[in-house]
Amino acid sequence: MRWTGRSGGDLTELRLRPAGPDDHPALWAMLEPVFRAGDTYAVDPAIGRAAALEMWCGGTHRAFLAEAAGEVLGSYYICPNQGGGGAHVCNCGFVTAQALQGRGVARAMLAHALDTARDMGFAAMQFNFVVETNTRAIALWQAYGFEMVGRLPGAFRHPARGEVDALVMYRRL
Amino acid sequence: MRWTGRSGGDLTELRLRPAGPDDHPALWAMLEPVFRAGDTYAVDPAIGRAAALEMWCGGTHRAFLAEAAGEVLGSYYICPNQGGGGAHVCNCGFVTAQALQGRGVARAMLAHALDTARDMGFAAMQFNFVVETNTRAIALWQAYGFEMVGRLPGAFRHPARGEVDALVMYRRL
Repeated sequence: MRWTGRSGGDLTELRLRPAGPDDHPALWAMLEPVFRAGDTYAVDPAIGRAAALEMWCGGTHRAFLAEAAGEVLGSYYICPNQGGGGAHVCNCGFVTAQALQGRGVARAMLAHALDTARDMGFAAMQFNFVVETNTRAIALWQAYGFEMVGRLPGAFRHPARGEVDALVMYRRL
Repeated sequence: MRWTGRSGGDLTELRLRPAGPDDHPALWAMLEPVFRAGDTYAVDPAIGRAAALEMWCGGTHRAFLAEAAGEVLGSYYICPNQGGGGAHVCNCGFVTAQALQGRGVARAMLAHALDTARDMGFAAMQFNFVVETNTRAIALWQAYGFEMVGRLPGAFRHPARGEVDALVMYRRL
């Protein structure tokens, strides 16, 4: 996959591949600051390494890594969002290495995730809990056809902003 | 708790109490036909007993039973719907013994669940996935102040009706 970020240089070629156990140190290095900050994911900021990796890669989740020049730049997981009659809708989570935020890594991962979701036979993708202050993510999801199909009033206690809404976002594939 | 169902008789006194391991046979007897039918819960209709009981009572879930005259009439669970900044919103699931549907058991359980949620310190209750054809449940949630805050288009494949929407319902406590 050709990386279309703005930085150029040795990150021109962004590669997406499935994550394996060997990638756990790199994954945790990206997840830990995001979860500790507690301002985008509804995850206990004190979560430990094993629980975080289980949340990201365990169960029905399939995790992928974005890397360039051997360096891990981001990751996403994909899983069925529900079972039974709801199993045709998938859910994804995304994390980008903090130094690289805003440079197109998330966009490339989202494009890959949409292709992966179709390959896996999913008919739609749903984000269950997008914190309304996470405006960069919301703008990206909207650019890729996601609609705000729900708003959860005061469902997130932001560490700096207090009670804010969370959005449910959805698109058919 | 005084049971206000329409049947009277020996079901007048409905009691709500925490469920324990001894209640698993009665719980599974109620859950199995509901999950097998696959028309209200987004759960694999082929789910096994252990997985169903884990889903209902395991992890962060607390399960309660409704009974009268020593007979189990229904159950609900309550749990945090998210972690971290979302942990002040709870989620619940309800099941009623099939022979007793429409007789006020779910209403009594919901009233108990709202009290329990407040006692546990939750600030809101959210139902993530209410199938739009489940009109009796929707009417009950609305009667108790839940609002439709989201609609997931085609997110449920109903065994008889095909693709239908699922609703996200929410109320502050």
